[in-house]
Amino acid sequence: MRWKKISDAVIRRLPLYLRVLDELANDPNTQLISSQDLGVRAGVGPALVRKDLAWFGEFGKQGVGYEVKFLRDELRRILNLDSEIKIAIVGAGSLGAAFARYAHKRYADDSSFNLNVVALFDNDPGKVGTEIDGIPVYSANEMQERVRELQIHMAIIAVPSEQAQTTADRLVAAGVKAILNFAPVKINVPEGVHLASADLSLELQCLAYYLRD
Amino acid sequence: MRWKKISDAVIRRLPLYLRVLDELANDPNTQLISSQDLGVRAGVGPALVRKDLAWFGEFGKQGVGYEVKFLRDELRRILNLDSEIKIAIVGAGSLGAAFARYAHKRYADDSSFNLNVVALFDNDPGKVGTEIDGIPVYSANEMQERVRELQIHMAIIAVPSEQAQTTADRLVAAGVKAILNFAPVKINVPEGVHLASADLSLELQCLAYYLRD
Repeated sequence: MRWKKISDAVIRRLPLYLRVLDELANDPNTQLISSQDLGVRAGVGPALVRKDLAWFGEFGKQGVGYEVKFLRDELRRILNLDSEIKIAIVGAGSLGAAFARYAHKRYADDSSFNLNVVALFDNDPGKVGTEIDGIPVYSANEMQERVRELQIHMAIIAVPSEQAQTTADRLVAAGVKAILNFAPVKINVPEGVHLASADLSLELQCLAYYLRD
Repeated sequence: MRWKKISDAVIRRLPLYLRVLDELANDPNTQLISSQDLGVRAGVGPALVRKDLAWFGEFGKQGVGYEVKFLRDELRRILNLDSEIKIAIVGAGSLGAAFARYAHKRYADDSSFNLNVVALFDNDPGKVGTEIDGIPVYSANEMQERVRELQIHMAIIAVPSEQAQTTADRLVAAGVKAILNFAPVKINVPEGVHLASADLSLELQCLAYYLRD
């Protein structure tokens, strides 16, 4: 089932709710949560909480609230986090390697993510064949066959700007459906592939604007 | 001078224009650029380019275009990137250390950024006193005095979620005016302090939503 017309803004709030519910699910004394309380903890207005969740079904009872574990499981299912998502990182330079280490530590310990970085790709022969925190570094030439073989559907692009579009094209050709682009450049993907950008330099450059008063 | 009512969306496009101009400034054959060409290269519609830039002054001539180096210098000035911006990273764990290495490599080689990570802070005694790619790791207890002493106005929060708000409060008290928050939690800052969030787990969780068809 797909919920066709739901805006990105709604989707972006679902992980915030999920985090609150994941935390609360460990507390045996909290079995129910009101939209008010969920909103405060997630930093979202309570009316918006109800509206966001209503897109996906009827999860709460008026005057009672939401069952914590039930809603958590539903949100995980909606976000496709109920089964393992295998991720490739292309580019094992400073940022790619760094994010691999971070993700390994962060997601391996916390099953609520279900995100698993299973492969790195690089074209430096000195890196190919090595491992970063147990994650193998493959040759960029093998990208397409490995992505297919390992059933990777999500990838992170951490290559230099001038290689970002080619990398995206190869990932898409191999069946990747969701890309997070760290390269500070605009890339294009065909319809049906979802692209997000995490351009950290751009964030810092924008912040600089607000420094002078 | 401040341009009060300019939206964040406009500000976020300025670094995209700046990148194009930085690249072109190295090419002795390109002294002028049309808004059309600037737009295509930056991935922004030409009408929007003109509109965005018009917020800050009259930089181009009708039918002639923009002088590349002049507009680059103006954009750097507008973004406060015409003088060095000193950045602190709080948290020298996997993500903080990783970003320090990345930033060191990326920004040190490229003077067009003018961003300089000058300090890391951590409360692990095993890390305090060490360096990461030449950047000293100070005790988190020294945060406020060091930030003042080193005249740091921008900071990156890379601590665990439960320490993020306290960290932000201390940074603000020490005079930091712009914060990039990597911790996967909502934090609050007073008016006059600008906050951006780079929640990479949230990006991946959102992307997961689009995986199922």
